Amino acid sequence: MSKLFMFEKPLGMRDTLPELYETKKQARNKMLEEIQAWGYQSIQTPTLEYFETVGAASAISNQQLFKLLDQQGHTLVLRPDMTAPIARVAASRMKSEGYPLRLAYDANVYRAQQREGGRPAEFEQVGVELIGDQTSSADAEVIALMVEVLKSAGLENFSVAIGHVGFVNALFLDILGNEERANVLRRFLYEKNYVGYREHVKKLPLSSIDKQQLLQLLQFRGDHRVIAEAREITENSAARKAIEELDQLWSQLESYGVTDHIKIDLNIVSHMSYYTGILFEGYAQNLGFSLCSGGRYDQLLEKFNRPTAATGFAIRVDRLVQALGGTQDSTPISLIIFSHERRQEAIEMARTKRKNGEKVVLQDIAGIEDVDLFTSRYQDVAYCIGKPGKESGQ
Amino acid sequence: MSKLFMFEKPLGMRDTLPELYETKKQARNKMLEEIQAWGYQSIQTPTLEYFETVGAASAISNQQLFKLLDQQGHTLVLRPDMTAPIARVAASRMKSEGYPLRLAYDANVYRAQQREGGRPAEFEQVGVELIGDQTSSADAEVIALMVEVLKSAGLENFSVAIGHVGFVNALFLDILGNEERANVLRRFLYEKNYVGYREHVKKLPLSSIDKQQLLQLLQFRGDHRVIAEAREITENSAARKAIEELDQLWSQLESYGVTDHIKIDLNIVSHMSYYTGILFEGYAQNLGFSLCSGGRYDQLLEKFNRPTAATGFAIRVDRLVQALGGTQDSTPISLIIFSHERRQEAIEMARTKRKNGEKVVLQDIAGIEDVDLFTSRYQDVAYCIGKPGKESGQ
Repeated sequence: MSKLFMFEKPLGMRDTLPELYETKKQARNKMLEEIQAWGYQSIQTPTLEYFETVGAASAISNQQLFKLLDQQGHTLVLRPDMTAPIARVAASRMKSEGYPLRLAYDANVYRAQQREGGRPAEFEQVGVELIGDQTSSADAEVIALMVEVLKSAGLENFSVAIGHVGFVNALFLDILGNEERANVLRRFLYEKNYVGYREHVKKLPLSSIDKQQLLQLLQFRGDHRVIAEAREITENSAARKAIEELDQLWSQLESYGVTDHIKIDLNIVSHMSYYTGILFEGYAQNLGFSLCSGGRYDQLLEKFNRPTAATGFAIRVDRLVQALGGTQDSTPISLIIFSHERRQEAIEMARTKRKNGEKVVLQDIAGIEDVDLFTSRYQDVAYCIGKPGKESGQ
Repeated sequence: MSKLFMFEKPLGMRDTLPELYETKKQARNKMLEEIQAWGYQSIQTPTLEYFETVGAASAISNQQLFKLLDQQGHTLVLRPDMTAPIARVAASRMKSEGYPLRLAYDANVYRAQQREGGRPAEFEQVGVELIGDQTSSADAEVIALMVEVLKSAGLENFSVAIGHVGFVNALFLDILGNEERANVLRRFLYEKNYVGYREHVKKLPLSSIDKQQLLQLLQFRGDHRVIAEAREITENSAARKAIEELDQLWSQLESYGVTDHIKIDLNIVSHMSYYTGILFEGYAQNLGFSLCSGGRYDQLLEKFNRPTAATGFAIRVDRLVQALGGTQDSTPISLIIFSHERRQEAIEMARTKRKNGEKVVLQDIAGIEDVDLFTSRYQDVAYCIGKPGKESGQ
């Protein structure tokens, strides 16, 4: 174990410097404003939760969890997502409120990285959970809200791909006969390894009709016409039901006027094993990975002894900022440099400017190391140096 | 080790429900706005740091640290304060910027609790660090800013007690002769155990003049006249120097017009062993514990290989909200309940209201469990139920 340099940070940990901080803040505030306008209420939950409760209910794999032991011998985790903690709150302290509950959050989540590969181990999510509403109106609301939230943050070129875990599951089980075989194919889809999927299907001991159906699944990505095509290939009632839900959802999203941003993708398989119905992923034109995701998870709340339906989304703030094209300039800062004789005058000047909404640094010249370097950071510089009145023109 | 209930949280961990969330948000935003007006720039640092670097540089005791091991065998800590992480950033990624640096933060910090005693193990701090300025102008700025920040958050009845670690240290060393004996007395002051201090002093093998000086120290709490009184009791040059610094600071704080909120307290001894000069604690009238604190720490930056002077403060947001008198009402939320025939109409109605700045929940009646309970949460309720036009009066 090598000696660390004092400035080193743990694997995947990042500092956010002023420019990026401001950019994130602006995006975050616009998103939360839109979310509040839709009547969602924000809550916070602790960074640390018990592994036995929220840790185990989260769908993040064990090796991605940051774990520690408390003094009572319980294992704690740094929350890997916000869905399970919010389910805990909805099932306990907010139990007396009538469903549906509309909750929002803005929180960092933690996923341990195995190696330095550019992936952050701590990142910020803005999201919502709509708990206790089994209707497809709830799915439509959550997706329409996500679209409006991304637009309000200033994002223009993005699309949300919607799938249904019930369709894939029913098709696989119908054709392959058991979950074990289905899992093999699901993994290919999860990894978006379509070549591997095709090769695997070709080798399966199935009829050519069955194989063709499995291969056809890969075509079910596009606009709403995919829904009609998918309806044709199967008689399976669960698969058909999933398709009807998607169809209904589409028409509701048309009512919201957001279908310009919507695609259908029946190949979406989330790593979140708790999704039970509609699920979706958002992509920005210039990003190679998903920006946001969500879906219906009707079985999570029962782990907290209050079974009910739920749906929600989470947006990654770091990726959104990247999609928006990096940092934006924040309000410039003015500088007043004073010497002690004119302290009072400088304080008054700063106060007046601040009252007018300006950002002003007030600096004793005796505290500056390198005046040129220091002043170069500021928009404009005023000097209150020497005898009162000398340079201020009074 | 007992089996946990699913809704349990680790020791000292808290949920923040909507009302408190809104109250904290309002206080936080007003504070950060004032801090920005003074030209401070916000940064974020990771929740996890190496124990060897930031963990060891923090002045929080070992048993209060949340520790975990990473896969390389290094010990990580959940940051126990923000001063050391900001020093790390100032000494590394912001190295090229000229001093002084004015940095701000709004972050949760973590301190493990030994038992459930009402103390949170995770709490939010809003604070600033002014790095690279050795002048007392820097101390005055930081204290004046803290006063203005508390006022901007809406706090009225509060006071900031200012001391100087140099006075206590010089007096103790001068009279007691060594650090070991000085530490015993410092601990009484740190625990604010003045009875114990008195009894201990009486038993010391010292001249009655020395004892009197040590007992007089307890009287040095009050308005600015304390400065003159303290100056009289010692000839020690280090103690005198500390008093001159306090005197200078007082007159600067008069220039800022904040001395109504300032007291002098030469008994302040912080648990933060890295304070090297002026130090202070803020109290609200109705709170039994300090609301905020800060001071000068001129030796921390050298641990990060970039020695320089520094000063700063941190305000505890949870305690501030308590001092402000609990939660405030947030904007009320309206409710529109619709049935599927009138979805489009309901969506349009919600959109119009949201554009006017209203918070609106749009709810499919088919998704409500208990209409009476659900509607009771909302300010006003509009119904779009049944055939179009039927109840809207069109």
